Amino acid sequence: MIAWLLSIEKACEESEMAIVGKHNSITDVAGIMAGNYTNKLAASGVTVILCKEGAVAGVDVRGSAPGTRETDLLNPINLVESVQAVVLSGGSVYGLAASDGVVRWLADRHLGFPMDEDENHVVPIVPAAVLCDLGRGADFIPPIQADWGARACDAAHNGPLSEGCIGAGTGAVSGAIKGGLGSASLVMAHGITMAAVVAVNSFGSVVNPDTGMIWERDTGIKNEYGDQGKRSVRLPQQLPEPPIANTTIGIVATDAKITKAQAKKIAQMAHDGLARAVRPSHTMFDGDTLFCLATGKRVLPDTQGVLAGNKAQAMNDMGHAAAECMSRAIVHGILAAETHGNFMAFRDLPDRAISSKP
Amino acid sequence: MIAWLLSIEKACEESEMAIVGKHNSITDVAGIMAGNYTNKLAASGVTVILCKEGAVAGVDVRGSAPGTRETDLLNPINLVESVQAVVLSGGSVYGLAASDGVVRWLADRHLGFPMDEDENHVVPIVPAAVLCDLGRGADFIPPIQADWGARACDAAHNGPLSEGCIGAGTGAVSGAIKGGLGSASLVMAHGITMAAVVAVNSFGSVVNPDTGMIWERDTGIKNEYGDQGKRSVRLPQQLPEPPIANTTIGIVATDAKITKAQAKKIAQMAHDGLARAVRPSHTMFDGDTLFCLATGKRVLPDTQGVLAGNKAQAMNDMGHAAAECMSRAIVHGILAAETHGNFMAFRDLPDRAISSKP
Repeated sequence: MIAWLLSIEKACEESEMAIVGKHNSITDVAGIMAGNYTNKLAASGVTVILCKEGAVAGVDVRGSAPGTRETDLLNPINLVESVQAVVLSGGSVYGLAASDGVVRWLADRHLGFPMDEDENHVVPIVPAAVLCDLGRGADFIPPIQADWGARACDAAHNGPLSEGCIGAGTGAVSGAIKGGLGSASLVMAHGITMAAVVAVNSFGSVVNPDTGMIWERDTGIKNEYGDQGKRSVRLPQQLPEPPIANTTIGIVATDAKITKAQAKKIAQMAHDGLARAVRPSHTMFDGDTLFCLATGKRVLPDTQGVLAGNKAQAMNDMGHAAAECMSRAIVHGILAAETHGNFMAFRDLPDRAISSKP
Repeated sequence: MIAWLLSIEKACEESEMAIVGKHNSITDVAGIMAGNYTNKLAASGVTVILCKEGAVAGVDVRGSAPGTRETDLLNPINLVESVQAVVLSGGSVYGLAASDGVVRWLADRHLGFPMDEDENHVVPIVPAAVLCDLGRGADFIPPIQADWGARACDAAHNGPLSEGCIGAGTGAVSGAIKGGLGSASLVMAHGITMAAVVAVNSFGSVVNPDTGMIWERDTGIKNEYGDQGKRSVRLPQQLPEPPIANTTIGIVATDAKITKAQAKKIAQMAHDGLARAVRPSHTMFDGDTLFCLATGKRVLPDTQGVLAGNKAQAMNDMGHAAAECMSRAIVHGILAAETHGNFMAFRDLPDRAISSKP
């Protein structure tokens, strides 16, 4: 009984499961592919998560400067039950155009909400969220068009996912340092996989300014953060640019079979992982938006005791795992980032001699 | 400019302000009084926060098993602009009755939404949330009636607030140990006060099971958690009761002048402090609900730069301060709790020799 209360890692250690998925990435979820298009010159890019067979989806928007499309249809009271892709993009408002290319790419393959019985005509369902990386590349507005989305689809695969300054994380900045794209996965004791991908472009900091250490460094499984994750660094004394150009966007995905309402609940709990890893988060300058995708391959175990049958216990585990994966993906994004101009990467910051608050 | 990015404490230290309010409690906010009614035999109680002159209010419900009243009127699109009290109560559904006593207590003093021009007749506005402590006292259902609410009003004051097994925290349990009522405050660099009160009755744990230490022990200001806050303890190996009877409920309050929408935003960001301090939080078994009250005595400083005039920067500080106060109030609630039957208090847990994950 105590297992629900312990951290997921603990529960998994007890059952001696391999707790990190094969690639420690969102591509560990059966039915999920990921693709990036990166434009270094424009310091922007697009990340597409494809679920060609469809995935039940939910979303929770908690930042106060969001940029999104197709999020209203994810309300559990609305018609559409599954989506074919979710797009994370740089370029702020302009980045929403990338989704048009993903819609067309899917339509060409007859993947989408069916408009006739033989599924010859479809309406691809492609929710999207953007982050603001304007002004960090050659031009203030990166030249994002529909083709960026299509190219990310062309690149989609289910192997190991590159991290750092790639896809939607290309131009990302987190607090005073370079942000990036990160991913992580977890195989839970009952065999269900949870995973996350996130582009960290936050107003708040992943690094505790009092200690110079990663806030959520203790969330790492089996030394996954390596020596970088143990460092205490000296943060830049100046922000490299005025704030406002922020927003962390991400996706948690699972192979579990859940409803739209349950997907929304998991997206909500995933924000707890963002809250822990980025401080402050969900500010007026962030459009923090997280999606949940569920490919429906595995049935949730039943709740024991008085609530038998309603899956609540498994939902607690799933939501907690989503939060943990989100925290870990955020740390990966920061550790994988590379210095870009004035935006120093964590890995390139000098060591701090002694922490002021040990 | 970097100050926004640093933790609030750091910003405050830099300006050499006293950063914790006079009593380190929600009563540090001008215009706020707090009162408790405690029934040890029933292992339940009521906490009332009174704002006799009215306070602009917001709420964010993020747990999946909430028990509330008068939360819909806090939607920014709705009529009522201010409330006269917020009630936190034990007793699950039955505890909602305590609010009736608070409503009558206020009506007797002509405090409420005016129904005629001379304010002779009023409708007191009293949002409330309950937590589930059923089965922990002499009877399964504690005998909560309206008089419990009235007695809490009678006891209201603006001095130091007792913590632990008192008021709504009387029967609270947090994970495998005893929960309780906690409070904390912060005076920000610009002189605005933020404070929190919370009854910690969570499914998740305030203590990291891997280390036996308080998850958010580093949030303490000037050793406010004392030696207890530094301990590594051995948690009970069994939950003292089956889960389900959970829910953390609380209030953040400020003397700032803000709108209903801004109060909702601050309540939302306060949940980030709950997410950090209680892991997991916002589960299917928690009805986690946080209110924000603003007494309107101090004007928010203007945002600098391109967003001048919209107060966004100050809102970031306020929301972050609300999250920090919420985390700290939660830790206070756990450290102040006393053992009750099988529910062991943190302070009575044995020391752990060596942490397994240092």
